[in-house]
Amino acid sequence: MDIGFLGLGIMGKAMAMNLLRHGFRVTVWNRTLSRCDELVEHGASVGETPAAVIKRCKYTIAMLSDPSASHSVVFDKHGVLEEICQGKGYIDMSTVDGNTSSNISEAITKKGGLFLEAPVSGSKKPAEDGQLIILAAGEKALYDEIFPAFEVMGKRSFFLGQVGNGAKMKLVVNMIMGSMMSAFSEGLVLADRSGLDQQTLLDVLDLGGMANPMFKFKGPAMIQRSFPPAFPLKHQQKDMRLAVALGDEHAVSMPVAAAANEVFKRARSMGLGDNDFSAVYEAVKNPDGATQM
Amino acid sequence: MDIGFLGLGIMGKAMAMNLLRHGFRVTVWNRTLSRCDELVEHGASVGETPAAVIKRCKYTIAMLSDPSASHSVVFDKHGVLEEICQGKGYIDMSTVDGNTSSNISEAITKKGGLFLEAPVSGSKKPAEDGQLIILAAGEKALYDEIFPAFEVMGKRSFFLGQVGNGAKMKLVVNMIMGSMMSAFSEGLVLADRSGLDQQTLLDVLDLGGMANPMFKFKGPAMIQRSFPPAFPLKHQQKDMRLAVALGDEHAVSMPVAAAANEVFKRARSMGLGDNDFSAVYEAVKNPDGATQM
Amino acid sequence: MDIGFLGLGIMGKAMAMNLLRHGFRVTVWNRTLSRCDELVEHGASVGETPAAVIKRCKYTIAMLSDPSASHSVVFDKHGVLEEICQGKGYIDMSTVDGNTSSNISEAITKKGGLFLEAPVSGSKKPAEDGQLIILAAGEKALYDEIFPAFEVMGKRSFFLGQVGNGAKMKLVVNMIMGSMMSAFSEGLVLADRSGLDQQTLLDVLDLGGMANPMFKFKGPAMIQRSFPPAFPLKHQQKDMRLAVALGDEHAVSMPVAAAANEVFKRARSMGLGDNDFSAVYEAVKNPDGATQM
Amino acid sequence: MDIGFLGLGIMGKAMAMNLLRHGFRVTVWNRTLSRCDELVEHGASVGETPAAVIKRCKYTIAMLSDPSASHSVVFDKHGVLEEICQGKGYIDMSTVDGNTSSNISEAITKKGGLFLEAPVSGSKKPAEDGQLIILAAGEKALYDEIFPAFEVMGKRSFFLGQVGNGAKMKLVVNMIMGSMMSAFSEGLVLADRSGLDQQTLLDVLDLGGMANPMFKFKGPAMIQRSFPPAFPLKHQQKDMRLAVALGDEHAVSMPVAAAANEVFKRARSMGLGDNDFSAVYEAVKNPDGATQM
Repeated sequence: MDIGFLGLGIMGKAMAMNLLRHGFRVTVWNRTLSRCDELVEHGASVGETPAAVIKRCKYTIAMLSDPSASHSVVFDKHGVLEEICQGKGYIDMSTVDGNTSSNISEAITKKGGLFLEAPVSGSKKPAEDGQLIILAAGEKALYDEIFPAFEVMGKRSFFLGQVGNGAKMKLVVNMIMGSMMSAFSEGLVLADRSGLDQQTLLDVLDLGGMANPMFKFKGPAMIQRSFPPAFPLKHQQKDMRLAVALGDEHAVSMPVAAAANEVFKRARSMGLGDNDFSAVYEAVKNPDGATQM
Repeated sequence: MDIGFLGLGIMGKAMAMNLLRHGFRVTVWNRTLSRCDELVEHGASVGETPAAVIKRCKYTIAMLSDPSASHSVVFDKHGVLEEICQGKGYIDMSTVDGNTSSNISEAITKKGGLFLEAPVSGSKKPAEDGQLIILAAGEKALYDEIFPAFEVMGKRSFFLGQVGNGAKMKLVVNMIMGSMMSAFSEGLVLADRSGLDQQTLLDVLDLGGMANPMFKFKGPAMIQRSFPPAFPLKHQQKDMRLAVALGDEHAVSMPVAAAANEVFKRARSMGLGDNDFSAVYEAVKNPDGATQM
Repeated sequence: MDIGFLGLGIMGKAMAMNLLRHGFRVTVWNRTLSRCDELVEHGASVGETPAAVIKRCKYTIAMLSDPSASHSVVFDKHGVLEEICQGKGYIDMSTVDGNTSSNISEAITKKGGLFLEAPVSGSKKPAEDGQLIILAAGEKALYDEIFPAFEVMGKRSFFLGQVGNGAKMKLVVNMIMGSMMSAFSEGLVLADRSGLDQQTLLDVLDLGGMANPMFKFKGPAMIQRSFPPAFPLKHQQKDMRLAVALGDEHAVSMPVAAAANEVFKRARSMGLGDNDFSAVYEAVKNPDGATQM
Repeated sequence: MDIGFLGLGIMGKAMAMNLLRHGFRVTVWNRTLSRCDELVEHGASVGETPAAVIKRCKYTIAMLSDPSASHSVVFDKHGVLEEICQGKGYIDMSTVDGNTSSNISEAITKKGGLFLEAPVSGSKKPAEDGQLIILAAGEKALYDEIFPAFEVMGKRSFFLGQVGNGAKMKLVVNMIMGSMMSAFSEGLVLADRSGLDQQTLLDVLDLGGMANPMFKFKGPAMIQRSFPPAFPLKHQQKDMRLAVALGDEHAVSMPVAAAANEVFKRARSMGLGDNDFSAVYEAVKNPDGATQM
C-alpha cells in the first residue's frame, strides 16, 4: 500500500518508521526536508511538497505540531488541496481543535476527497513501539481502508463517528487525566505535611484498586520534584480549559475539573508551563515554607 | 501461634478463616456468638468475652464495625482492658478515627500491653483472598511479632510509625479515590452529553496511562446506573470530609478534594448514601432532563 | 448638540428619551421603524437607515441587543461605514465581545471616524432615571466631546483607556456579582436547612458590613422562589465563562469564580436560563427532598 | 438594673462602658483585675470572682475571648456555677462553638438559672458606638428581660430560638462574608492583570447594586496591600471551616464556600493568619512574578 506522510517530528518520524518496517511504501514530506534523510535510508521516497505527496499516493497521513501547521499544509500554496480529488483519502492524526478539523474536512470533501481526523493518545515511546491509541472520526469507508496502517502504528484504534468526535474524546480523556494528577498531587502533599512517607503512599496506591501506570511512573519523579516534559503542563491546562468549555456548550457542570483547571492555571502562572504536567504538584505544594496556624 | 480474634463481620470472618487455614490456632469472639459457629467448624475455639480471649492469647486482633464498637470492646465490662498486661499485644484492624485509636492505645499501654492500629485497604473479596493492604502503626516490636499473621491476611503490610499514621494514610488514599471517582464521573457525563459513546471512553481509558482496576470494574456498572455497595457513598464522603479536615489542620489547600467532597455531599442529599460511592455519578449526571441553553 | 441614536429597545428608548428631555436634538433609527413613533412625539427626527443618521449627525450612539446587531448596523448595506468620516464620532454602548468591538473600532478608524465603546452597568430602571454607569474606552477626545450626553444618561461615566477595556471592566464586575449571588444562595440554603429563618438572615445581613442593594432587593423574592428576569441567568453564566477565560489568558487562578460558574451551569442545565440570575438559588437548593444522612 | 459583666477585653470593655453610660449599675470582673480600673472610674463595682458577680447580680453578661475561657469562667472554682440559681440569668455574648454553648446551657439550667447565648456581629468600633448586631438564642423570657441592655449595646438584636442558633447564624453570615471577600479579591487581581485600574473597579462597584461597606472600606487598603487586623484571617478561615462542616451535617453542598475556604487555607499557609481576613487577596494575587504562558 502506498502511503504519504506529512510531518516528521518526534511522533511523525516514529510512526512513519513503523509503516516502513511493516512493508508499506511511504512517501514523506517535512517542512525541513533534511529530517526526511533517516527515513529515506529505510526505504522512504520524498515528496517535494504536500501537493506532490498527495498526487503520488492514494492515502496521505499528516502528523503536524499544531492546528496552524495542520491548516497551512492543506490550504497554503503547494498544499494538500491542490491535488486532493475523488479516490484519495487524507488522514490528519495531529491534535487540532474542532474548528480547524471541520474546516479541513469541508475543504477536502468539497474536492471529492475522503477525510478522517485521527488524533492519538500516547507520546514518543508508544509511537516508536506502535502502541498508540488512535481516535478516528469522519469517513467510515476511509477508516476501513486505512485500518492496516492504524494496526501498525497503534495497539488499538476506534472509529468514533462524525468529524470532531476524535478531538472531543481526547479532551474528555485528558480532562480526567488532569483531575487525577491534581488529586494525586494533593494526596502527596497532604501525606508529607501530616507526617507520612510519600514513597509509602506510592507503594500503597500501587497495590490497590487505583493502581495505574501514570501514578507508578510519574510519582517517584514528582516527590523528587523532577518534571521532565512528556506532556507539557501548558498543553494539559489548555485541554482542561477546552474540556470545561465543551461542558459549557452542553451545560454539564464539572466542579472537580474546573477546580483542577484553576490549579493548573496557578502552576502556569508560577512559570511551570513548559514542565511536565505533573509539575502541578508544585502549585499544590507551594507555599511550603513558614506555616503559621 | 495462638491468636485471638474479636469481631466476625464480613471482613473479620474472612480474615480469621485465613488464619485458621494457614495453621494458626485462633480463639474467636463475636457479640452475637452464633456467628462463631462456622469458624469453630474449621477449628477455632471460642472465648466468652473479649477479656477471656485476651487472657488465653498472647496476641489479639480486633476487626469491628465502627469506632464505638472498637471503644466498647476495650473499655466495657469484660473488655480487653481487664486482662491486657505486659507480654500481650493488641492489634485493632478496624477503621477508627484518631481520637478513638489514641484513647485505646493509651489505655493498653498503661496496663503494660503493646498496641498496634492496623486498618486495611480492601473489602470483602481481598479479605477472603488474603489480599488486603495493611496499614499498621504503633509498637514496632509488636508489628514484627504479628507479621506472620499479616502475611496470611494481606498481600502487603506497611509499618507507618506512630499510632494515628495508619488512619491518616487510609484517609489520604481514600481522598485520592474519591476525587478520581468524581473526575471519572464528570468525564462519563461529558462524553455522553457531547455525543460520545461511554463504553468507548471506558475502552480508551483502559488502554492508556490511567488504566486502573477501579475504572475497569466500576465503569460498566456505572453507565448502567447500577451501584451495588462495595464501599458506601456516605462512608466515602465521611473520609473526604476527614481528609479535608486533616488538610485544614496542616494548612494544606486542597481545592480539588474540596470540590469533590461537595459533589459527594450533593449525592448524599439525593438519598444515595447507602449506594456504592460510584453513585456520585448520579449527582454529576443530574439533572439530565430538559436542557435549556 | 445633534446626536444620532441607533437602536430603540428597552434600554435605547429610555436613554434617547433622556437626551431629548435635556434638550439634545436627536435623530433616531430602529430596525422596526414604528418603535420610533413615541420618540418622534417627544421631538426626535427619524433617519431611514444607520447611514442616513450618521450623515446627519456629528455624533451617533448605538444601543443594540447583541454583538451581531452591533456588527450589522456598521457593516451591512446602508450601514454606519458608508457615511462615517473624519470629524464624526461613533459610540457603541451595547454590550459586545472584544472581537466585535475591535473590528468595529478598526473599520471606523480606517475611514477617519472616532470610536468609543461604552457599555453600561444597570438595567431598565437606571436607564429611565439617567442613573446608568458608563464604562467608556477608545478615543479620549471623543469621550470628552460626548461627555454632556453621558451626564444625562448616567450617574457616572468612566474613561478606561484603550478599546476593549470597557468590556473587560464589565466582565470583572459581573464575575464578582455572580460569585456573590452564588455565595448568598449557599448561605440562604444553609440557613434554611440548619433551622434558621431566612428572612432573619436577610435582616442580619442588611444591618452589617455586607449590606448591599442586590441582597436587599433580590433576597425577599428569592426565598419566595420568585425570579423575574432583570438580568437573565444565561447571560450571567456567559459573563462568568468569559471572565474565567479572561483569567485564563492572563494566568489568573480564580477558584471561587470557577466554582460559581459551575453552579450557574447546573442552573442552566435545570432549564433556568431565562429566569433572573438569582435563580441560581434553585441549583443550590436542589435537591431539597428526601435527605438521607 | 444591676448587671454583672465578665470579661473586659476590647469588646467587653466597650460594651460595659455603654451600659454604665446609660445608667445601668454594673459589677465587673476580669481575669486581670487591673483592667477593671477604668470602668470603676466610670462608676462600676468590682467582683472578686465570677461567682461573686453572679451572687450580687440578677443578670450577668460574659464577653470572653474564646470557647475555653467561656468554659472556665462557668465551670472552674469560684465560677458562675457556684452561685447561679433560680431567678438569675446568664448571657454569654462570646463567640463559642455549639458544644461549649450547649454544655454551659445545660449546666446553668440544671441549677435553675436562665441562659442565653448572644454572639455579636461587629468589632471594636460598633462595640464602642453601641451599634452591634446581637444574635440571641435560648430562653425567650431572659431575652425579654435583658432587652434594655441589648438596646444600649447594639443597634439591633434578634431572638433566634433554641440555644445554638445564635452561633449558627453567625457562621452563615461569616461564610457569606468570606466567599464575598474571596470573590472580591479575584476581581481585583483579574482587573490588575488584564490592564484595568483597581481603584476604578472600586469606584464602579461602589456605584452599583453590589455596593457595600466592606468593599468600600477594605478595598482601598487591599490594593495598597495593607491588612490591619479587624477580623483575623485565621478566625475567618475557622468560621468557613465550621460553616462547611455545618453544611456537611445537613447535606448541603456548598461548592463556592468550599472553594473560598481552600483559598483562605492557602493564605494561612502563607503565614497570613494574623492579618485581617482581607489578606486573602495575597493568596489570590500570589504568585505575581514572572508569568510564563
